[in-house]
Amino acid sequence: MTYSIEIEKSNQACDILKELDFDAWLVWVRETSQMADPVLDLILGADLVWQSALLYTKQGEKIAIIGSLDADGIRSKGIFDKVVTYDTSIRDVLLSELNRFDPKEIAINYSKNDVSADGLTLGMYQILQDYLKDSDYPNRFVSSEQFIGKLRGRKTTTEIELIEHAVRITEEILEEIRNEVRPGMTELQIYHRIHRMMSAKDVGSAWHPDHNPAVDAGPNKEFGHSGPTDNKTKRGHLLHFDFGVKFQGYCSDIQRMFFFGTPDMVPDEVAHAFRTVRDAIQLAADAIKPGVTGNEIDTIARDYVKEQGYEEFRHALGHQLGRLAHDGGTLLGPYWEKYGESPSGILEPGNVFTLELYVTTENYGQVSLEEDIVVTREGCRFLSTPQKELVFIP
Amino acid sequence: MTYSIEIEKSNQACDILKELDFDAWLVWVRETSQMADPVLDLILGADLVWQSALLYTKQGEKIAIIGSLDADGIRSKGIFDKVVTYDTSIRDVLLSELNRFDPKEIAINYSKNDVSADGLTLGMYQILQDYLKDSDYPNRFVSSEQFIGKLRGRKTTTEIELIEHAVRITEEILEEIRNEVRPGMTELQIYHRIHRMMSAKDVGSAWHPDHNPAVDAGPNKEFGHSGPTDNKTKRGHLLHFDFGVKFQGYCSDIQRMFFFGTPDMVPDEVAHAFRTVRDAIQLAADAIKPGVTGNEIDTIARDYVKEQGYEEFRHALGHQLGRLAHDGGTLLGPYWEKYGESPSGILEPGNVFTLELYVTTENYGQVSLEEDIVVTREGCRFLSTPQKELVFIP
Repeated sequence: MTYSIEIEKSNQACDILKELDFDAWLVWVRETSQMADPVLDLILGADLVWQSALLYTKQGEKIAIIGSLDADGIRSKGIFDKVVTYDTSIRDVLLSELNRFDPKEIAINYSKNDVSADGLTLGMYQILQDYLKDSDYPNRFVSSEQFIGKLRGRKTTTEIELIEHAVRITEEILEEIRNEVRPGMTELQIYHRIHRMMSAKDVGSAWHPDHNPAVDAGPNKEFGHSGPTDNKTKRGHLLHFDFGVKFQGYCSDIQRMFFFGTPDMVPDEVAHAFRTVRDAIQLAADAIKPGVTGNEIDTIARDYVKEQGYEEFRHALGHQLGRLAHDGGTLLGPYWEKYGESPSGILEPGNVFTLELYVTTENYGQVSLEEDIVVTREGCRFLSTPQKELVFIP
Repeated sequence: MTYSIEIEKSNQACDILKELDFDAWLVWVRETSQMADPVLDLILGADLVWQSALLYTKQGEKIAIIGSLDADGIRSKGIFDKVVTYDTSIRDVLLSELNRFDPKEIAINYSKNDVSADGLTLGMYQILQDYLKDSDYPNRFVSSEQFIGKLRGRKTTTEIELIEHAVRITEEILEEIRNEVRPGMTELQIYHRIHRMMSAKDVGSAWHPDHNPAVDAGPNKEFGHSGPTDNKTKRGHLLHFDFGVKFQGYCSDIQRMFFFGTPDMVPDEVAHAFRTVRDAIQLAADAIKPGVTGNEIDTIARDYVKEQGYEEFRHALGHQLGRLAHDGGTLLGPYWEKYGESPSGILEPGNVFTLELYVTTENYGQVSLEEDIVVTREGCRFLSTPQKELVFIP
């Protein structure tokens, strides 16, 4: 019998439809090698060329309506109960499959809050409306945001194992690089060494390789999304990494702080900043459990940082982690406009989150850490080994 | 002075706005590592995390309105005249930049016909409408389809050189594999050897590596988008490749036919099929010149194949090639519903197209070839070396 994560997630999709009492979910795409709905990796793991409709019902039926040239590849996946093909126009076959179920509401992939549930393009939406204009279906479309949040967020045990494996490889590489970095090396030299280690371990990059790993040496760089430079590491300075790998399609994402020198050389302001970041993460982790909102967790870390006399960090405390480094759904974040409704989501067992934040010192730049955790029935479990002290490079 | 293809294409963008008399073009995106508007590779070559607006005007001004954490990386690209940053909400800065120009129409990326011009998601479109709802701008949105068709389709000389280089590497690999394949090898064995050659030459895959190269041995496989199998090559049988690499971001895409045996062993039906496909491609190439429609070129090849007694091929004769293997815009295709308006586009100098088609034999499966050409001022030039005879494997 065929087994794959895609089959596991497709079955989960029908279960969640039933749980939410949604009649049907429609994934409507074309030419996915150029513009892929981010949900496709999760439920299909293949490309579709012509206009294609993947239809899931709460009765548990999974139907692919696809171009004839895609049929062999999709059938061989063993995901769908029925594969309907066409050559020149999908309109009639799509309508006839919908008519078999006559769904009262059809979840489609648009969302203001969640990029991972917003895979439908405006042009494709207009085409869908055209095709179905003589039916009542266009009035039955609803956002799949809540549905995809659950589908993506509730990691199966297989998915959690893969993320944990990705985290372990990330930590191994950081341990190797710890033995190689010396004062005077540039960010770019360190970056290239890490890329060679990634190749040797046959893992991909969890986000755009241009700025993965982020390598930030010394006090004069804001940690963001710029790439490594010719800035040199220096005795008495900090070195920061933001690094994630992709292992069999699943991502890690952690941040670590190195210090060039011995423990007695660490300036007080750096030591205090480090403790603040480390303890804020632990306080947040201690509060995580099913049923709390993402915002409640963010607030704990954010308030603590402010109590310690720092400006609050200008990003969310944590995002979900999975097929994507930013895996959508509930966010551990503040209610800022750009985050939409995502901080009001409720944590569920199986959700995997990052916990990350920085504070800014006066003379030594930013101090930033990031750990990965999974929500359990009682609380949470760290997937990474939390950094408790600076890593000292002699 | 900084130079990059992204700068070249961004300048070209402003020129085309002027030519088409569009006041402004707005690229509106977020979290592009998860869901990237396909135009971003062309004009930016970087990811954006928070909601971001890239604004181009026909006066030649290029403005990036982006999250503060993205600012360093984007500034260092040297593309934009102005980089405006924000921390919690983009709304006011976006509105204030639009007000500086008060554009009468704003091209945004949606298109029914062209996936490469359809990068705006429905959720992001709704957010944009919300943000601008107290202004008249939502009434001024127009599709950027025609604009992006020209921007993507008019390859610069740098872009053509890169595609040509990708084609050359593809042909080198096919020449190497010619010396390695023997009857009895499976499709998967050949596929894996080609992947090793791609790694050795440090090139990527022009489309999903699961079915690139397509390797089709013997008569019983429809050439489509399914991956290689354990089917074995066999003396007296055909072997088909559909293969493209990505070199410095630019793609090739060619198909080749091998035959296991000597020229005298080729069955008449195979010989006739091969000549038909080869000659149909040449006839189409002979007719290509600026000013003709994509459909006119498709019709020439399609009619010839039917005259020769075959069923017509169930796909378009040719698609554009560039950053993407299917690079959008004008298509050399029939007027089938799924192709929308794209076959009515007009060929322009600098357009790079594939020319590809198959016919089906009675006993030996499909015979299919694909070449790559660039439209010139007078006609077209082959970027690939057209296959004129079957490649014989002893």
